[in-house]
Amino acid sequence: MSKVTLLRGSRAGAETPSLTVEVEAGTLLREVIEKAGWSLPLPCGGQGRCGRCTVVVQSGPVRRRSVSRLTPDELAQGYALACQTVIEGDVAVLVPQQELGAVRPDVPSAAEKMAPVVVTCDHERAPWVEKYALRIEPPSLADNTSDFERLQRELARQVGLRGVTASLASMRKLAGALRQDDWVVTAVVERGTWASAEGTARLLDLCAGDTTARTLGLAVDIGTTSVVVYLADLRSGKLVDHASAFNGQITCGDDVISRIIYTRKAGGLEHLQELVLQTINTLIDELLSRHGLRPEELYLMTVAGNTIMIHLFLGLDPQYIRLEPYIPTINYPLPVCAGDLGLHMHPEATVDCLPGVGAYVGGDITAGVLRSRMTEGDALTLFIDIGTNGEIVLGNADWLISCACSAGPAFEGAGVASGMRATLGAIEEVWINRETAEPTYRTIGNAAPRGICGSGMISLLGEVFITGVIDKSGHINRGLSTPRIRLGPSGPEYVVAWACECEGQRSDIVLTEVDIQNLVRAKAAIYAGFTVLANSVGLQIADVERILIGGAFGQYIDIEKAIQIGLLPDMPWERFSYLGNTSVQGATLALFCRDHRGQVAEIARKMTYLELSADNSFMDAFTSALFLPHTNLESFPSVAQVVAGSAFAQGQNRGPFCQLCPSTPVIASRVGKT
Amino acid sequence: MSKVTLLRGSRAGAETPSLTVEVEAGTLLREVIEKAGWSLPLPCGGQGRCGRCTVVVQSGPVRRRSVSRLTPDELAQGYALACQTVIEGDVAVLVPQQELGAVRPDVPSAAEKMAPVVVTCDHERAPWVEKYALRIEPPSLADNTSDFERLQRELARQVGLRGVTASLASMRKLAGALRQDDWVVTAVVERGTWASAEGTARLLDLCAGDTTARTLGLAVDIGTTSVVVYLADLRSGKLVDHASAFNGQITCGDDVISRIIYTRKAGGLEHLQELVLQTINTLIDELLSRHGLRPEELYLMTVAGNTIMIHLFLGLDPQYIRLEPYIPTINYPLPVCAGDLGLHMHPEATVDCLPGVGAYVGGDITAGVLRSRMTEGDALTLFIDIGTNGEIVLGNADWLISCACSAGPAFEGAGVASGMRATLGAIEEVWINRETAEPTYRTIGNAAPRGICGSGMISLLGEVFITGVIDKSGHINRGLSTPRIRLGPSGPEYVVAWACECEGQRSDIVLTEVDIQNLVRAKAAIYAGFTVLANSVGLQIADVERILIGGAFGQYIDIEKAIQIGLLPDMPWERFSYLGNTSVQGATLALFCRDHRGQVAEIARKMTYLELSADNSFMDAFTSALFLPHTNLESFPSVAQVVAGSAFAQGQNRGPFCQLCPSTPVIASRVGKT
Repeated sequence: MSKVTLLRGSRAGAETPSLTVEVEAGTLLREVIEKAGWSLPLPCGGQGRCGRCTVVVQSGPVRRRSVSRLTPDELAQGYALACQTVIEGDVAVLVPQQELGAVRPDVPSAAEKMAPVVVTCDHERAPWVEKYALRIEPPSLADNTSDFERLQRELARQVGLRGVTASLASMRKLAGALRQDDWVVTAVVERGTWASAEGTARLLDLCAGDTTARTLGLAVDIGTTSVVVYLADLRSGKLVDHASAFNGQITCGDDVISRIIYTRKAGGLEHLQELVLQTINTLIDELLSRHGLRPEELYLMTVAGNTIMIHLFLGLDPQYIRLEPYIPTINYPLPVCAGDLGLHMHPEATVDCLPGVGAYVGGDITAGVLRSRMTEGDALTLFIDIGTNGEIVLGNADWLISCACSAGPAFEGAGVASGMRATLGAIEEVWINRETAEPTYRTIGNAAPRGICGSGMISLLGEVFITGVIDKSGHINRGLSTPRIRLGPSGPEYVVAWACECEGQRSDIVLTEVDIQNLVRAKAAIYAGFTVLANSVGLQIADVERILIGGAFGQYIDIEKAIQIGLLPDMPWERFSYLGNTSVQGATLALFCRDHRGQVAEIARKMTYLELSADNSFMDAFTSALFLPHTNLESFPSVAQVVAGSAFAQGQNRGPFCQLCPSTPVIASRVGKT
Repeated sequence: MSKVTLLRGSRAGAETPSLTVEVEAGTLLREVIEKAGWSLPLPCGGQGRCGRCTVVVQSGPVRRRSVSRLTPDELAQGYALACQTVIEGDVAVLVPQQELGAVRPDVPSAAEKMAPVVVTCDHERAPWVEKYALRIEPPSLADNTSDFERLQRELARQVGLRGVTASLASMRKLAGALRQDDWVVTAVVERGTWASAEGTARLLDLCAGDTTARTLGLAVDIGTTSVVVYLADLRSGKLVDHASAFNGQITCGDDVISRIIYTRKAGGLEHLQELVLQTINTLIDELLSRHGLRPEELYLMTVAGNTIMIHLFLGLDPQYIRLEPYIPTINYPLPVCAGDLGLHMHPEATVDCLPGVGAYVGGDITAGVLRSRMTEGDALTLFIDIGTNGEIVLGNADWLISCACSAGPAFEGAGVASGMRATLGAIEEVWINRETAEPTYRTIGNAAPRGICGSGMISLLGEVFITGVIDKSGHINRGLSTPRIRLGPSGPEYVVAWACECEGQRSDIVLTEVDIQNLVRAKAAIYAGFTVLANSVGLQIADVERILIGGAFGQYIDIEKAIQIGLLPDMPWERFSYLGNTSVQGATLALFCRDHRGQVAEIARKMTYLELSADNSFMDAFTSALFLPHTNLESFPSVAQVVAGSAFAQGQNRGPFCQLCPSTPVIASRVGKT
C-alpha cells in the first residue's frame, strides 16, 4: 500500500490541512483524489487531453502516462495530470485550490444571473395535472360501494371524469384520506400522459380537505454545462421561482463526447446519472425550502435537454449516439415515475422528457422551437442554439429542417489555452485599441481575470480581427511592435492579460494562433451549417427574415462581434432576437399545457434532420468559412467596411509594455522555448 | 432487564436446547418468544380467546392478564397464555413443541395433497402477454431512426402491433439487447391490462435471440389458511406445475377478523403483508428451482382471494371492512407491478387481483363462479364455498345473487375444544357404533390423533346425531350409559379419543355441547343463507337444480353427513358436484385468456350482493336452522328416515371402557369440576 498525502492551496500560498489516503501502488492519482472526496475538473473525461486536472507532485515516485499540455519546465516543477499519473510509492500532492473552485463557483452562474423569462400560455387551460375538491356522500348499508369505486363515481358525477385509475400508493392512502376530514377530499388527477391514450386519468394523490389552492410542477433544462429548474403553478400558469447550478457531470467531462466516453468505464453511466440527479435534487430542495413545500406537492416534471443529457438522466446507454450511424435509444422518451429516478417529488409524479429529432438535435431544440413560435407564421426563420454543438433550425409554419454542427467546446471556454467557463473572473468582453493594440476587458464579477469565457472569445476574436492584430486567415500579425504579440510554446500568441494582473495565475492570459484556429473552425462549422441548411431547401442565407438566438449561452453573444468573425450572417441587427434559455421556457410551456406538449411532439415529428457528415456540400461550405469573416467577403458587407478602415500603420505605434513587468521571466522562458 | 429462558419440548419429554433472551420487565411473553425467532400460533390474533398459545411457566414471576381457557389445575401447573402474560422478573418458559409444529406441518397440507385440476381455455387464444421473435433491419445513416422507434416500427410491420410503450427498465436494456444477437430479438409484450384502454401494448422485456418457446405466468389463490400457486404457460394454455403452503399469516390469527384486528397494531398491516408475500415467494422459488427458471421469466400473475386477503396482499387497510357498513378500499383492484410488491417475478410484471363484489364476497368467489360455468346455462345453480365464511351464489346465465354467512371458524377447526387444522394427526372422519356409542376414526397421515379438523367435525356431528348420542337441539344424551359421555369443565361432552391414544396430548379429544352449539350455529348460518338467498328472488331451495361445491375445503366435505346435519340441502346426491379449489382454477383461466378475465369482471358487476345483516328474514331462517337437521324436518326427508330408525335402547347397551385406562385421573378431575 502507498500513502498519498493530499494538500490543497495555491502553489505559492500556504497549504491548507492535508489528507492522507492509503491506496494500492498503481492507482491513478485522479482516483486517489476522488477517493478523498475532493472533486477534480475533468473536462475531457480523464483522457489526458485538456490539462485541467493538473496537480503538483511535491515528493515521491509517480509515473506519467501522458504529459500533454505540460511544458518541460512545468514537469521539472512537479506538474502532473491527475488523470494520467500513477502512484508508485508514498507521495505528497498539491491539488490547486482554484481548480476545485472552478466547479463550485462563488458567484451565481450565468444561468443564475439571468432573470427568468416568464412564458405564459394563451391556450385555454389544459393542464396535465388537476386538483378537484370533492364532498363525498359517506357509505351506508344501502350504498356500500367500495371507497375507490365511490371516488370514481363522484369524479364522474361532479367533474365528468370517468374511469380514473390509481397507483398502489394512492389506493393505500384512500381509506384514511376519505375519512380524515369527514369525506371532504382533494383528488389530484393526472389527465393522460404523452404515452397514454387520450382521456385516461390517473389518481396521483388524495388529500384530506381542500388543497386546490395550488398545483405545482417543475420544468427542467439539463444543459451539458448548467441545469435550470423552474417551479411553476399549473393552475395559474405562472412561474413561482427558479434555481440553477452547474451540471454535476462537469467533473467527468466538459462536453457530451467526453461524457459518453466516461460511460464506458465500469459504473460510469450510473455515476453520471447520479450526478445529474443530485444536481436537480439540490435545486429542487432549494426551491422547496424557499417556499416551505414538501416534495409530495410536486406533481409533474417536464425535462428538456440534448439527446445525450436525456439519455444520461434516464440511465440509457448513450454509446451508439457517438458511433456512426449515431443511433439514440429513444427520441420520444416515454414518461417515467419520479420515484423510479429518486427525484425529490411526489414519487408517482410523471417525469416527461420532451422529444428530440435525433442524436444531435434533442428535446432542448424542439422545446426551443416551440418557445420561438417560429412555427406560427410564414416568415422564414433561423433558430440557433450555440453551445458545444451548434443546433440550427430553419423553417416556418409549413416546414422545419435542422442540423447540428460539431463546433467543439471552444465557445464553452474549453480547448482554448486560457479558456474557462463563464464564472467569477472570466473575461467576457474585450476592446482593443487600434493604435496601440492594448486591450481593456471586463470580467464576470469584476474580479481579477482568471481566463476567457465563450462570449469573451467571440468579443476578443472580433477585436483582434478588426484591429488587424490578426489577418483574415487567423494569423497573428507578428510585424506589430508590441510585447503583447510574441512567440509562445505553441506558436504566436497575443497577451490579453499579464500574469501579474491575475490573482493566483501561474501564467499570462493569452490568445494563441492555435486557439484562433479552434475558434475559426467552430464558427466556420456553424456558418457552414446555415449555408448547407438553406441550400438544401433551395434558399440562400440572405432569404432569412428573422434570426432567433436561443440557449443559455446565446444571450451573451455580442451580435456585432459575432457578425465580424462570421459566426452569424451579416444582416441588419433588428432581424436578430435573443430569446434567452429557450429550452427551459419551452419545457415550462409544455408543463403548463397539454396542447403545448402536443405541439412539441408535432415539431419533433415535422422536423427533418440533415446529417451534415453525410452531406457532400458541407466540407466546401466549411472550408469557405475558415476565413474571417468568410472567403466571400461580399456576404459580409458591413464587416468589409469596418475592416477597410482599420489597417495598422505597421511599426508606427508601439504599445507600452506592462508597467509593472515589461519583460517578465515567464515571457522570456516561454519565448525561449518552442 | 429480565432474563427469559425459553425451552422447547413436550411437557413430559426431554427439553431441547434452551435460548435466553433479555427483555424489559413488563414485556409480553408472546413478544419474547417472537423476539427469539420462534413462531407461536395466535389463531385469535393474540386476544386471549383461543388458548392456542398456551405455554408452561416453569419458574419466575409473571402476571396473567387473562386466564380464559385454562383450568385452575392447569394454572397450578404453570400453564399461561403467551399473549396475555407479562414478564415480571427472570423466568423459564416451556414452549410446547407440537404447537410450533402445527404451523409448519410435516405432511403436505390439504391443498398440497390435492391433485391440481387442470383447467383449459377453449376460447381462441387471447393471452395478456405474448412473445414476438423479430429480425430487425440494422440502422444506417439513411435510416437512423432510434432503437425504440425502430422496434415500434417492426412490431407494427411484422405483427401489426401499434403504439407499444415501454418501461424505463426495458428502455435501458434496449440498445444492448438489439445488438447482442445481431438484431434478432424477442419482444415480450403485454397487450393491455384490466385497467388500461383496449389495444394498448407495453414492452415488458426485450431479450436477445428467440426465446418464444414458452411464456410463463402464475395464478395464485390466497386463502385465509392456505396459499396455492399454479405455474402456467400462457402460450400453450397448459399448467406446468403447482405448489402450496399454509398462509404465513396464520401465526397472527386464524380467521379474517383476527387478522383485521392484528392490523390495528403498529406495523401490523405491513407485517401481515410481508408474511403472505413471503409465503408466495417461497412457493415461487420452489417452482423456479424445480424448473430451472429465473424470476424474470414470470411475466404475469393473477390473484384470487377473499376481499380481506387481497387487501392484506396489497397492503390496503382493511379496518373498514369489519365495521358497519363494511366498506373495502377497492372491489376492482387495479393492476400493480410485481416489483412494487417485491414478488420474485419480472419486476415489471403485472399483478392482477381479480375483482370481488363486496366486503365479504371477494375475487375468490367471482373466480369460482367463472370456473363453475354456472353462468353458461339456464339451470338454477347454487355455488358454495365453505370456509371460515360461507359464500353462496345463486343464479344462472341471466342473473346472480350472492351472500356471505359468517359461519365462524368452527369448520376450520378453531373455536372448538379439540379443533385443529387439517394437518398431520387431525381426525377427518368418524364412525360411531349405534349399539355401543364407541367411535372409530381416520386421521390425516394415519398418525396418532391430535384433534379434529373441519371435515372431521361435520362427520362427527352427523354421526353423533344419527346415532342418537345427541338430540336434534344438540344436547348430549346423558342417559346413555357409556364413559364416552361425561361432564367436562364446560359441560357435557363426548370423548372421541382418550388421551392415552394420542401421542403427546395432555387431554382427551372431545366434542363438547359448547362445540356442538358452535357447529350448529355455523351450519345454520350457511343454510339460512341458502334460504334467504332463494327467497329473496321468490324461489325455494328445492328449486335448485345443481349444487356446485368449491373452495379448497369443500372437496373434503362428506355430502351425506353434511345433509344429515342440515348444512347442505337434502337433495339427490347426483345434483352435487365437487369442483376443488375453484379460486385458483378461475385465476388460471383469467391468466390464460383476456376473455376470461373480462368475464370475471362481468360476473362481479352482474352479481347482486345481499347483506344478510340488513335482511329481516335472515334471523328467522337462522333460528329455524338451529336444529339438527332443521326445525322443518320435511325439508330433509332422507334424514328423517335415517333418524327414525336409530333410537338407542337406553341403558341396554353399555359400551366397553377404554381397555388401557377405564377411569383415568384426568377424567375424574374433569368430571369433578364445573
